[in-house]
Amino acid sequence: MAGLTTEVRMAIADLNAEYAACLDERRFDAWLELFTDDCVYKLQPRENHDRGLPHATMAFGSKDILRDRIYAVTQTLFHIPYTTRHVIGWPRVWIGDDCLLAAEANYMVVRVRDNELPELFSAGRYLDRIVRNDGRLKFKERLCIFDSALIPDSILYPI
Amino acid sequence: MAGLTTEVRMAIADLNAEYAACLDERRFDAWLELFTDDCVYKLQPRENHDRGLPHATMAFGSKDILRDRIYAVTQTLFHIPYTTRHVIGWPRVWIGDDCLLAAEANYMVVRVRDNELPELFSAGRYLDRIVRNDGRLKFKERLCIFDSALIPDSILYPI
Amino acid sequence: MAGLTTEVRMAIADLNAEYAACLDERRFDAWLELFTDDCVYKLQPRENHDRGLPHATMAFGSKDILRDRIYAVTQTLFHIPYTTRHVIGWPRVWIGDDCLLAAEANYMVVRVRDNELPELFSAGRYLDRIVRNDGRLKFKERLCIFDSALIPDSILYPI
Repeated sequence: MAGLTTEVRMAIADLNAEYAACLDERRFDAWLELFTDDCVYKLQPRENHDRGLPHATMAFGSKDILRDRIYAVTQTLFHIPYTTRHVIGWPRVWIGDDCLLAAEANYMVVRVRDNELPELFSAGRYLDRIVRNDGRLKFKERLCIFDSALIPDSILYPI
Repeated sequence: MAGLTTEVRMAIADLNAEYAACLDERRFDAWLELFTDDCVYKLQPRENHDRGLPHATMAFGSKDILRDRIYAVTQTLFHIPYTTRHVIGWPRVWIGDDCLLAAEANYMVVRVRDNELPELFSAGRYLDRIVRNDGRLKFKERLCIFDSALIPDSILYPI
Repeated sequence: MAGLTTEVRMAIADLNAEYAACLDERRFDAWLELFTDDCVYKLQPRENHDRGLPHATMAFGSKDILRDRIYAVTQTLFHIPYTTRHVIGWPRVWIGDDCLLAAEANYMVVRVRDNELPELFSAGRYLDRIVRNDGRLKFKERLCIFDSALIPDSILYPI
């Protein structure tokens, strides 16, 4: 963590907390603003990531495509409604080879459907490249690597 | 987070960690001291909270009533014993309109009964108003908003 | 938390995050370096710990014995493969009676087996004594106290 102040590192924990709150409370417009315009977001099973295989469950190459996905899932897809709850561990933070902030954090997500008990939905880790943009920290890249190759039903919203 | 020092924000994470430890280790006297005398504690399903409906699973309007609940659950209620384990995410913190500290954090709670495997019991978020009292931070209000309207068996202890 | 700087307390959260990442990514050599040579690691059910009973599921009295365990589990044991994911809460930190850093944190661990959904595997707390060694914080003692006396199948890797 050499060279990184407590303020910067806490700001990354804040960014993760904001990310979780935006997804869990369905504040998608605010969620999109946590990414840079040229962001990369991928949701990929651990097995593929670890072997360097390219296939991803979701792979979006800009904020506009992320916005499109949010539109699709909230406006056009027909599915059993559910809400989520993220708990994200304290992040590991360092300066990457590309001189950007790099961070990694473990997460668990619980899914809740109407009239059902809460269920463990996904567990894994976030691998991030973070930049300062418009005076705040944003994700230039967030890889969400989930541990279980088996998906419960389907993943509609980004994790 | 403007105007809030890293110390204050870390102190709120500490308060949440202490809250979890007190409940999970059954140190209820210490747990009560995390609240102000005129505190509000509510446990409410997300659906009711989001629609502004008043019904709550638990609603206590002072530390004395909280103390009464603890007495009831530990001394008078007959129920299958269980212990809990809370993991609480990093809090979002800001200054509220009432000039008090406001905080929000996601949580998951696991329940363990004798001779059973650990079970996911509750997931949701805490919405807090926090004051400095007797030289330490205390909850003036803690709303525990749980995601699942369905409750596994019953919730006896505060979450 | 009197006398402890935000830097030291954050460094303990970092240590926990590194511990989780090393176990979950199977970087066992790096994981061993988080312990002092004369470390104690115990994995014990809550019931035994709370009653002061000595029996532990795992009890290792030095880094060499920990290394031996890692060799056994990775090289010699025949078992159904699984990976884990730890999420650890924000730690409570204080100066212990022995003048060492003392810390406590709640955790949850998810287990993933091939072609199965993620499962809640263990929940409990870490009780730590931490020293500065070779310029970084290390565990002189980590007690992992798990809440459920019942173990799902078997625990092969340290928690």
